[in-house]
Amino acid sequence: MLPTALANLIDALGRLPGVGARTAERYAYFLFKSDTNLSHKLATALEELHQNVKTCPKTFAIMDASDQVSPLYDDPARDKSIVLVVEEALDIYAIEHTKTFHGTYHVLGGAISPIDGVSADQLHIHELIQRVADDSVEEVIIATNPSVEGESTAILLEKLLHERFGNLKITRLARGLPLGVSLEYADQITLSAALENRTKL
Amino acid sequence: MLPTALANLIDALGRLPGVGARTAERYAYFLFKSDTNLSHKLATALEELHQNVKTCPKTFAIMDASDQVSPLYDDPARDKSIVLVVEEALDIYAIEHTKTFHGTYHVLGGAISPIDGVSADQLHIHELIQRVADDSVEEVIIATNPSVEGESTAILLEKLLHERFGNLKITRLARGLPLGVSLEYADQITLSAALENRTKL
Repeated sequence: MLPTALANLIDALGRLPGVGARTAERYAYFLFKSDTNLSHKLATALEELHQNVKTCPKTFAIMDASDQVSPLYDDPARDKSIVLVVEEALDIYAIEHTKTFHGTYHVLGGAISPIDGVSADQLHIHELIQRVADDSVEEVIIATNPSVEGESTAILLEKLLHERFGNLKITRLARGLPLGVSLEYADQITLSAALENRTKL
Repeated sequence: MLPTALANLIDALGRLPGVGARTAERYAYFLFKSDTNLSHKLATALEELHQNVKTCPKTFAIMDASDQVSPLYDDPARDKSIVLVVEEALDIYAIEHTKTFHGTYHVLGGAISPIDGVSADQLHIHELIQRVADDSVEEVIIATNPSVEGESTAILLEKLLHERFGNLKITRLARGLPLGVSLEYADQITLSAALENRTKL
């Protein structure tokens, strides 16, 4: 019933995560009513995405296709003896925004999830072990998400790294109360962790 | 900090209605992790949108650029003596899905809104009056949204049409209880309308 070009656009937009038919329609109609430039800009950005963005072969972070390795690894100011391990490349930018970490990153590319069919050998764990050996890494900070999948992955990583490198320091991000959440609403596990890991004033 | 091509895409996606920085990041990263085909398909659909979709010069509905007038107007099976007036072109498809209307449509292109700077002369009201005269229209069904803007527009339309065409039947969509909303949660105005316009069993 809709014009074919609009229906095609709705169909393509509907493939984005969390975008249903109604939202896709709203986006498409907005683009149709907006200036042609916006559609054109978006189309160009899409065509350039896979050409100009690549995954770093060392850290699996995302980087400009013109780079050989991620600038966050290549930069001599970054301490290669500390590796912070995240699930997804975007997690890096959440950490970078804090401006308090000066080590390097390693992206696993997900977390172990039997339901989604993700097993340990699909993650970049082998490459992490290789890096720990090659770069004489002293500390690995495990920063997987606080979900069932992230927890399982953290436990496995700890086990594998510990077996292989007896002297390696393995740490995890602290558990505790996030800013702005009152005690009343904090869940039991978070609150137990906050109590257990209390800090001296 | 992000690769330029990814930052450009996030920027363009962030222009969509209701899409903030985080959502735009999620969409862009999803597209990066997905097959190139999806980005390519979306880019092609965007480039073809303004080329292949046009506004009907008669009804202001959207149509394939190859059409002279909207097929919903052109079709001899549609009754041109009944015109249903909507704010936006997508509203037509909501009515069409009911499969119960066989008249034609007229898109106003919005509703009167002093706050958004939309005045009556920016809407396709003049063209509607022209159509009522040209097509010997017998009934105009006003189907603007039940918002303050839609209401004001409906009142103005009724006044203008009534002044000009004494014998024209002017109707509005019924007010009443929507499916699945219990009495308890219905607002006062809707409930008053449902009571006033009660139907005989």
